[in-house]
Amino acid sequence: MGIEGNGTTATSERNTGHVLERLTDRFGDRMSTNPTVRQQHSSQLTWLASQPPDAVVFPESTEEVSEIVRICETGRVPVIAFGAGSSFEGHVNAPFGGVSIDLSRMKNILAINAEDLDCVVQAGITRNELNEHLRDTGLFFPIDPGADASLGGMAATRASGTNAVRYGTMRENVIAVTAVMPNGEIVRTARRARKSSAGYDLTRLLVGSEGTLGVMTELSLRLSPIPEAIAAAACPFPSVGSACDAVIATIQSAIPVARVELLDEVTVKAVNRYSGLDLVETPLLLLEFHGTPEGVKEQSRRFGEIAEEFGGGPIAWADKQEDRTMLWKARHDAYWACVQLRPNARPIPTDVCVPISRLAECVEATKVEIQRLGLIAPIVGHVGDGNFHVQPLVDMTNPCEIETVRRFVGDMVERAISMDGTCTGEHGVGQEKVKYLRLEHGDATLSLMQLIKRAVDPNNIMNPGKMLEITR
Amino acid sequence: MGIEGNGTTATSERNTGHVLERLTDRFGDRMSTNPTVRQQHSSQLTWLASQPPDAVVFPESTEEVSEIVRICETGRVPVIAFGAGSSFEGHVNAPFGGVSIDLSRMKNILAINAEDLDCVVQAGITRNELNEHLRDTGLFFPIDPGADASLGGMAATRASGTNAVRYGTMRENVIAVTAVMPNGEIVRTARRARKSSAGYDLTRLLVGSEGTLGVMTELSLRLSPIPEAIAAAACPFPSVGSACDAVIATIQSAIPVARVELLDEVTVKAVNRYSGLDLVETPLLLLEFHGTPEGVKEQSRRFGEIAEEFGGGPIAWADKQEDRTMLWKARHDAYWACVQLRPNARPIPTDVCVPISRLAECVEATKVEIQRLGLIAPIVGHVGDGNFHVQPLVDMTNPCEIETVRRFVGDMVERAISMDGTCTGEHGVGQEKVKYLRLEHGDATLSLMQLIKRAVDPNNIMNPGKMLEITR
Repeated sequence: MGIEGNGTTATSERNTGHVLERLTDRFGDRMSTNPTVRQQHSSQLTWLASQPPDAVVFPESTEEVSEIVRICETGRVPVIAFGAGSSFEGHVNAPFGGVSIDLSRMKNILAINAEDLDCVVQAGITRNELNEHLRDTGLFFPIDPGADASLGGMAATRASGTNAVRYGTMRENVIAVTAVMPNGEIVRTARRARKSSAGYDLTRLLVGSEGTLGVMTELSLRLSPIPEAIAAAACPFPSVGSACDAVIATIQSAIPVARVELLDEVTVKAVNRYSGLDLVETPLLLLEFHGTPEGVKEQSRRFGEIAEEFGGGPIAWADKQEDRTMLWKARHDAYWACVQLRPNARPIPTDVCVPISRLAECVEATKVEIQRLGLIAPIVGHVGDGNFHVQPLVDMTNPCEIETVRRFVGDMVERAISMDGTCTGEHGVGQEKVKYLRLEHGDATLSLMQLIKRAVDPNNIMNPGKMLEITR
Repeated sequence: MGIEGNGTTATSERNTGHVLERLTDRFGDRMSTNPTVRQQHSSQLTWLASQPPDAVVFPESTEEVSEIVRICETGRVPVIAFGAGSSFEGHVNAPFGGVSIDLSRMKNILAINAEDLDCVVQAGITRNELNEHLRDTGLFFPIDPGADASLGGMAATRASGTNAVRYGTMRENVIAVTAVMPNGEIVRTARRARKSSAGYDLTRLLVGSEGTLGVMTELSLRLSPIPEAIAAAACPFPSVGSACDAVIATIQSAIPVARVELLDEVTVKAVNRYSGLDLVETPLLLLEFHGTPEGVKEQSRRFGEIAEEFGGGPIAWADKQEDRTMLWKARHDAYWACVQLRPNARPIPTDVCVPISRLAECVEATKVEIQRLGLIAPIVGHVGDGNFHVQPLVDMTNPCEIETVRRFVGDMVERAISMDGTCTGEHGVGQEKVKYLRLEHGDATLSLMQLIKRAVDPNNIMNPGKMLEITR
């Protein structure tokens, strides 16, 4: 069998035309080859070139996804799952062509089990849509990556976000998934019990697999009780290091902080300007505490003492709902606020994650590089997890600058890995970070990943060109 | 290549004698074929027949484990990892012979990273040994399955126990593992960052794999701060149903209960007699609350209100350390207390797990069966997880009774699965529960597990006969 160097089936063996015909016959106007639709289904949010698929299909059930995959499989045509398109690392691009499976018509909530604190949803629903539905149950789905991503996409990239320090990531909050495998078979990875020791953890194998093993179509998710009381706060610190030290002490003291976000002074300036706030323009922690009214008061008081010990303050408390909303809206708008720092430039968001004890050092070293290279690159971090984001603003008409930023990102990844960290804490590998996996994992571990990929998807039709180099 | 029906390499192809010679040459007196030693390295705690390995080797490093596996692999000789031997489902038996790798000389603590709340240990250390070492750090490793199991064994069976409702299971608390794969390669599944989206979650693939994919030799583990204040309580309820309803309401109210154990009246009687207590002999919840002094008071008060609402009480509080110790010692001794209920009989501990909303129904139906069959079979449950244990006491000289209990366990498993539960919440599959995996997972999912096993361990040398039927 002829295989190209990139591991995808040679184009000669493929029969894309025939596959598209069969999909049109079967799905009618729920199948599109319209150039605009195809373009919308490629990656739009990164510096990676947009690589549209050959066609987009809009299934409405797991069985229809299975049909699509079976049809694609007969022609060895790549299959790319598409949720909300909000990923940063080129996950939905089609570098080898193929069929984009758009799950946006699969938004049904199949069950809400309030007593069990779980629900079962189709993978196309977004987190805000789910939380809107849950409003009257007293429960919510806590994972909040900022964007209103689809839950299938969040599972595929093992997303997390501001709440992860308290509530975990998609890894901890997906109980089971239904997925269509490359042969069209439908697997459900686990039952709804909270825990199980019955067999391999296929749930966790699929969560974070970026569509390279199968297409997730349904998810059983953990829900959390909406906290009775919430308090938020903004606390300036003299340095990134003192802010990180305060967070370490907070976590060691078992204060169950629900969010703890670091904004560097560049981001604070941008946020002040964009959202009309007057936060102190030094490294800043934005925090949130969840609990009973008494519990939240106690957490707040104890954090205040710790912050003072590390030179932080004065703390601006946001007890009222509207102040809290304003604060977190400002945090979530940080992306757009930062974009304004350099009009006409493109933001290149990227993330790494290190053990929290190394976070300050890693952020500071990154800031030194930013200064040395003359970049505009604001930093925000989910400090409780050791995870931070850098968002260089790049003039995409300047190849030299692009190259500089590419090297800057590479250096940052190497720095994180050298500190026992990872090349991505929550964005995923996608296309751009494939090259760092060997450095991070080593030959033997990477080979094991490739072995699993080849066993499950021998023809490499599942999102080829993402996450793993597949050569044979 | 000749393969037997059970999927292990045909004995004719094996060269056990040569492998044992090479192991003796290499490991000298750290390799034993002594019948007593071999016997000690088979399963001792279940009704399953003891099946000793051909030899036992005592490595002292990951590299030595790799050497052993490579030597065994050349002769297609099975490899069985051995921790503390405390598993219930025959995990350490050697049904096809082979070499037991005893990790008890691998107890080193390689790193304690207090700021990161993690540590790195060799897999042979037990949880009590680790917690002893951690005592002065203010941190502890929370997973507590009762037995002083090795951490490698706990990872292999995805163990959990009384603390899981608050702290999670081994799935949530293992950050990374180092494992020796069937070809002798050493993989480290992840770096030490709290979260990562960089590739397949090999950590979770190995956790719970029961030694069928590789031998875990080192673990990076999450640690938790020792709570400032702890309160424990015993609260009787009129029925299993009302106890479960109180737990559901407690969890929905976001009370972060640290332990919540159900003892049925049979177990309470046994515990009273064995530990000299005077607990009310009805279904009973044993609880523990962790937090600040204020927080624990508030949790306790709120739980008290909920318990009353569901007819529970009066609550016996154990605020003093010695009372708490007595209470939890009694809970941990429940196994031995129950054994006393029928001298000369053998306990057959087994577990299932269901969504918590179905727990009362599942336990009640099980108790009806126990009564109908005239069994003595106490029940204890980790109610917050929907997980419960039944411990039938069986006269092993009576084949008819053995058969009755076997059918009883089978029916209980089917009941749990029909309630969207699992055949084992924390004991693992081992030998006895292999037959339930198809019912629980279905053909497609089971085939995917088998596909992964075959890809990773093509000669089926890793703990053959456990977890999955492997036929070709």
